[in-house]
Amino acid sequence: MSKDSKIPNPTIQRLAIYSRPLEILLESGLPVMSSEKLAGLCGVNPAQVRKDLAYFGEFGIRGVGYDVRDLLQAIKGILATDREWALCIVGMGHLGSGLVQSENFKKRGYMVKAAFDSDAGKVGRKLACGLTIQSASGISQTVRKLGIEIGLITTPPHEAQRVAHLLQEGNVGAILNFTTIQIRTRKKCVIENADLSVKFENLVYHLEQLDKV
Amino acid sequence: MSKDSKIPNPTIQRLAIYSRPLEILLESGLPVMSSEKLAGLCGVNPAQVRKDLAYFGEFGIRGVGYDVRDLLQAIKGILATDREWALCIVGMGHLGSGLVQSENFKKRGYMVKAAFDSDAGKVGRKLACGLTIQSASGISQTVRKLGIEIGLITTPPHEAQRVAHLLQEGNVGAILNFTTIQIRTRKKCVIENADLSVKFENLVYHLEQLDKV
Repeated sequence: MSKDSKIPNPTIQRLAIYSRPLEILLESGLPVMSSEKLAGLCGVNPAQVRKDLAYFGEFGIRGVGYDVRDLLQAIKGILATDREWALCIVGMGHLGSGLVQSENFKKRGYMVKAAFDSDAGKVGRKLACGLTIQSASGISQTVRKLGIEIGLITTPPHEAQRVAHLLQEGNVGAILNFTTIQIRTRKKCVIENADLSVKFENLVYHLEQLDKV
Repeated sequence: MSKDSKIPNPTIQRLAIYSRPLEILLESGLPVMSSEKLAGLCGVNPAQVRKDLAYFGEFGIRGVGYDVRDLLQAIKGILATDREWALCIVGMGHLGSGLVQSENFKKRGYMVKAAFDSDAGKVGRKLACGLTIQSASGISQTVRKLGIEIGLITTPPHEAQRVAHLLQEGNVGAILNFTTIQIRTRKKCVIENADLSVKFENLVYHLEQLDKV
């Protein structure tokens, strides 16, 4: 299967969404699924499903549907979620502490290998997951040593840029930034923003619009 | 100022992003900011900034820049973040418990008024923030009584759809869904998805592409 880097971002995001019901269907033993049904489960129109999947070659059997196992396998291959990834989390506040303990990450192959904080009062504290909080000053070395590929930043905003540099010095390839700051990178590094306050602002804006109708 | 419901979503999202450095600049006493500087701080190009802000009338003074206080006030008015919003969180797992204690929400006017869980073992437990976990069976009534406008769903995926119905019966206008399930609504309700695993999948896909270059 070709992995074309020109696949549009929205398609990649929808592939992740398609994989959810497929996982459930596979577990419940359903072998085949139509694009109409998959579309319905995902809140997308069927033509969009077919168009998205067509980027990756032929999965469907006309008039029957998609083989659930094959399709899921293919999507996971495309998304590179068929392997384990090594993560670290920097910032052991409420959000970071919640994420470090998430069973969902582990289930999906995202293994949290290290947790950092800049607060000396937190360093050395043992977490329920078995990790011990390490000092943020050692990020670059530890990350490099453990081969950590993805860094999550859940620090206060003013620490985020500095942490991002330390992560990159340690050769992290991707950063998921939960702070309100836009991070700039020196080297090639994938940055995704997961700032919840932006989600909220989007939500309340539309809520206000709704109230006016 | 006109609040046009046809303002594109990406613009709304960028307005939230623009407001971050503006808050910091206002606090540090800087009165005026150019679109070039604002763009640089946000990782957006200056023409985009000017285009986005033009939707809302004239903020800028040619050759000088934007008045920081006025611009921030205007953005907050547009995003409807200049008032308080009442929230509830359903699902007191690691993520929900982390969010319920978040100081960032309160600082931005998002007031968590109730926390729910379907686990009888958790119901009645007092949280550090002062709230007591309530039974999910009472969502509709409590939400209506407290005038809660936004519901966050941090339950396991298979509970999400049922919880969404209960929230809507209680007249919640917007739902922020952290689960992997796509929620369908009966009435008019704003739904935003904040499923982190989709963010991750997007991240690792691009990380794989990067490795190939």
